[in-house]
Amino acid sequence: MTDPPVILGIDPGSRATGWGIVRPLGTRLVLVGCGVVRLDPGADVATRLLVIATRVRQVVDEHKPTHAAIEDVFVNRDPRAALKLGQARGAAMVALAAAGLPVGTYPPAVVKRAVTGSGRADKSQVGRMVRALLGLERVPATDAADALAVAICHARSTALARLTAARR
Amino acid sequence: MTDPPVILGIDPGSRATGWGIVRPLGTRLVLVGCGVVRLDPGADVATRLLVIATRVRQVVDEHKPTHAAIEDVFVNRDPRAALKLGQARGAAMVALAAAGLPVGTYPPAVVKRAVTGSGRADKSQVGRMVRALLGLERVPATDAADALAVAICHARSTALARLTAARR
Repeated sequence: MTDPPVILGIDPGSRATGWGIVRPLGTRLVLVGCGVVRLDPGADVATRLLVIATRVRQVVDEHKPTHAAIEDVFVNRDPRAALKLGQARGAAMVALAAAGLPVGTYPPAVVKRAVTGSGRADKSQVGRMVRALLGLERVPATDAADALAVAICHARSTALARLTAARR
Repeated sequence: MTDPPVILGIDPGSRATGWGIVRPLGTRLVLVGCGVVRLDPGADVATRLLVIATRVRQVVDEHKPTHAAIEDVFVNRDPRAALKLGQARGAAMVALAAAGLPVGTYPPAVVKRAVTGSGRADKSQVGRMVRALLGLERVPATDAADALAVAICHARSTALARLTAARR
């Protein structure tokens, strides 16, 4: 039997990028760690993107996840916002790929449904369910909770379940 | 007197990312190198972004530019396209920032005007002017020509001229 999976979820953003790591314990999932990389709005874009990539790599080196997943950026009608989110997402994905991690991607509605049962749940509902599912004392910071939701979604996805079964 | 600047320009794209390097020779600019990183459309996004970041870093290590510039992505009305371009741009910027290079950014119209005198020049006009300005035998591949145009624009920008003068 190989080690059980350790799953890193990322919620990319140009102002704040959340990360969260979970692992299975029996039939449950438990928290390994989570946090938010807050970006200095006064710093230039390249520097902020390097901070995202560097911090994601530090998280990987520290917690040694075996799988990673990142939320598909919600593309609203504002192309400028989509560009900024894309850059942050690109920076995080480069770090994950450079660390040799396979990266799953999930649309926001799929992540919400995996955690709350509804693809239209709001952020506070996602936070409350992340807290309940992981047995946490309090709701994590919003971006960290969103990242944990991505990790939980990935942990529950058929693909990962199959992969894990195949590894045993 | 310090060494003259060596300027790397990047034209980011999710299918092909161009790069081009120029340096001053007397009152002219000459080509140091240029190329296009073509991305495998069948590969997953994280892998493609890692290829962009890795190749940009290889180019930096090989040619040792002292300055870098990247085109502001043209944000049209398609947020999906903006997202993909943003990811490619983010991957390239992470590599430049990780190499310690200051990264200038220029809107496409400014790049075109710097090279052709018109902010509305089409791609073939940009290519022809890049060829003429650098004294090349032929017009480089489109993405490489666009990257060289960014490098030429940066070389001619007041900010870089001032920086170079201050270093002498």
